[in-house]
Amino acid sequence: MAHTLSSAGRRIAQRARSLNSSAIREILKFTERPHMISFAGGMPLSATFGLPALREASVRASHGAESFQYSTTEGYAPLREWIAREHSDSQHRVSPSSVLVTSGSQQAFDLIGKVLLDPHATVLVERPTYLGALQSLSLYEPEFVSVPMDEHGLVSKALESIGPERAALLYLQPNFQNPTGARLSFQRRRSIAEIARRTGLIIIEDDPYAALAFDGRQVPSIHSMAPDHVIYLGSFSKVLAPGLRVGYMIVPRVLEQKFVQVKQAADLHSSTLSQRIVYETVREGFLASHVLRIASLYREQCEAMLSALDRHMPPGVRWNVPEGGMFVWLALPEGIDSEALLKDALAVKVAFVPGAPFFARDSLHHYIRLSFATAAPEQIDLGIERLAALINAYSRVLTPYLATDLHR
Amino acid sequence: MAHTLSSAGRRIAQRARSLNSSAIREILKFTERPHMISFAGGMPLSATFGLPALREASVRASHGAESFQYSTTEGYAPLREWIAREHSDSQHRVSPSSVLVTSGSQQAFDLIGKVLLDPHATVLVERPTYLGALQSLSLYEPEFVSVPMDEHGLVSKALESIGPERAALLYLQPNFQNPTGARLSFQRRRSIAEIARRTGLIIIEDDPYAALAFDGRQVPSIHSMAPDHVIYLGSFSKVLAPGLRVGYMIVPRVLEQKFVQVKQAADLHSSTLSQRIVYETVREGFLASHVLRIASLYREQCEAMLSALDRHMPPGVRWNVPEGGMFVWLALPEGIDSEALLKDALAVKVAFVPGAPFFARDSLHHYIRLSFATAAPEQIDLGIERLAALINAYSRVLTPYLATDLHR
Repeated sequence: MAHTLSSAGRRIAQRARSLNSSAIREILKFTERPHMISFAGGMPLSATFGLPALREASVRASHGAESFQYSTTEGYAPLREWIAREHSDSQHRVSPSSVLVTSGSQQAFDLIGKVLLDPHATVLVERPTYLGALQSLSLYEPEFVSVPMDEHGLVSKALESIGPERAALLYLQPNFQNPTGARLSFQRRRSIAEIARRTGLIIIEDDPYAALAFDGRQVPSIHSMAPDHVIYLGSFSKVLAPGLRVGYMIVPRVLEQKFVQVKQAADLHSSTLSQRIVYETVREGFLASHVLRIASLYREQCEAMLSALDRHMPPGVRWNVPEGGMFVWLALPEGIDSEALLKDALAVKVAFVPGAPFFARDSLHHYIRLSFATAAPEQIDLGIERLAALINAYSRVLTPYLATDLHR
Repeated sequence: MAHTLSSAGRRIAQRARSLNSSAIREILKFTERPHMISFAGGMPLSATFGLPALREASVRASHGAESFQYSTTEGYAPLREWIAREHSDSQHRVSPSSVLVTSGSQQAFDLIGKVLLDPHATVLVERPTYLGALQSLSLYEPEFVSVPMDEHGLVSKALESIGPERAALLYLQPNFQNPTGARLSFQRRRSIAEIARRTGLIIIEDDPYAALAFDGRQVPSIHSMAPDHVIYLGSFSKVLAPGLRVGYMIVPRVLEQKFVQVKQAADLHSSTLSQRIVYETVREGFLASHVLRIASLYREQCEAMLSALDRHMPPGVRWNVPEGGMFVWLALPEGIDSEALLKDALAVKVAFVPGAPFFARDSLHHYIRLSFATAAPEQIDLGIERLAALINAYSRVLTPYLATDLHR
């Protein structure tokens, strides 16, 4: 019996050995404790689900046997057609054949890794970037290279100088990025599309928060500017319901068949019933007004957070003013370690996500991600007040050292 | 614009280049034509879904917001507990922590490849074996080695002599194997479990058809004999509804965390609603009587097929007598090419799956897989009669050549 337990453990493949559970996942366990004020989760409020419409759609969709039968790998045809129409306009027509329904956007990362990443391929990412994408793509053993970003998103000039022609992929979130909340400007989208066309770079444009613009303004996607070079990822998780696990990819024509094949190998197809429920909910235009309600709710919570930050945070703490989405990105005075801060924050019943895991390499440890999606406005004020008190305490203790640092 | 279309195509990763759409998938397109008698699909009859129970469960499950919310990667806790109880008995207790809900068994293949296969690792498979597993595992670039099987399943003595200690995995289906319909004998299960314990071999025991035994007899799983060496795959696709995409893995304790991590990277979790519908349907014991109804339906269709084969097939054609499941495996006279036969069969509105893709290497081309799951008994007789007429014609044409072959 010498082989029993250890042998199975020894057989773990190289790619899976360094994999760790996401920091967010571990933290979410704490957020379920009673009276916790959570700024940690990217979990939408269930008030944003449009539950009556979803319930009705579920009853309708579960009536027929075909909702429970195997279906095509590409996804439910009427849903694919709806998605293609939503992304088409007079200048740019999306074909339903280029739409592949996925089990959330998360699955798209995995399929992209499978189809496009050989070991050691270069993947360009924003600095910082969405950690779920890092986690999924890292199983295909690429080298990540970070591209600088600012409050207008990825700096396209920096992309140019980094040598995009050597890269297999550029991954970015154009709208209300997770974690920084930044929206990529129209001018930079144009520059990035132009670089892709010129160098053959493939862009993953991951866009789950597009509809959550507080001002209702939609900036054209990079996909609409360079459809042969962009894999566009959309999702119903943030505008309808994440638990159905329905997202989609729009892929360049030349890659369509390869993606269908790897999707088939991965899970045959996404839940037929989930896809039909989504279609039954959205087909008559439900989302048009529904996303306005969600955006308005999140705007209110965002304003509560911004005014609480103004009220409570000590000097030396900086943050962005998001134009949509779910996140504020907070820069603490350098020298404050956000993971140490988290431990103290949890003790006073406030949760957030430390910034370090959002960096592909050379992590910065004095950033934190605050989500305003989950807590109600009065809770937000209370939570920020507690957090500010802790940061204040840290700053006081650290001030002599920080001052020294400045003169180095 | 020199880079546009070709550049994206040129960037396809090594592992994805040789991938093709499954033969079954291509054939299923034909089976949708009107008046086709299909022996091709592994698609369960919708009469086996227990639709009233599923509908009721869907209405109940879609009532609460939590069915539409993100949930844990491991799966819905009450469902995992139910699965663990189902697989436990007085000698062998399965812990809910070792149960991971997957998006069908197909996803389990992908997760196993990720966690356990380095490039060029040896994977032992039955000869022939399930092509969906081959397709999914092949993305992790292993070397497949076929182990002989007969009507009692994989030949355990042959496994011994092949050197199991060099292999990363052994993949098999113990009950009513796809494509041969064979059930692995109790004695061989014991021998295989013993080999695994002695050599440290990890076994994937893929068991979607276990409940479809025509005699109601359950042979103990290899998993129950060597739980530290077996990854057991179960599914609700053949006993409830495939479109929900709910399957599960039971994994050795030492691998639990790794599988949760790769599942998280692959799709965060399987559809919350699908999982709750399955649980709501099965929780009060619905399956116990339901699987008897399905097995009895398939037994009737199997008997219709066996008696049609007896009635119509020319000498020189051999087949097994399945004790359950959905498949009969037919050996044609050598020299008859099953893919050529398929073209002629489709012309007379009969579909089946040629045997060649079920071989990991050194394919034999004179086998075909017949599914008795889809067509009604009178259709089965008609379809087999047409197929027999074609095989007869092929045999007559080939007889002089076949006789020559015998003397080589």
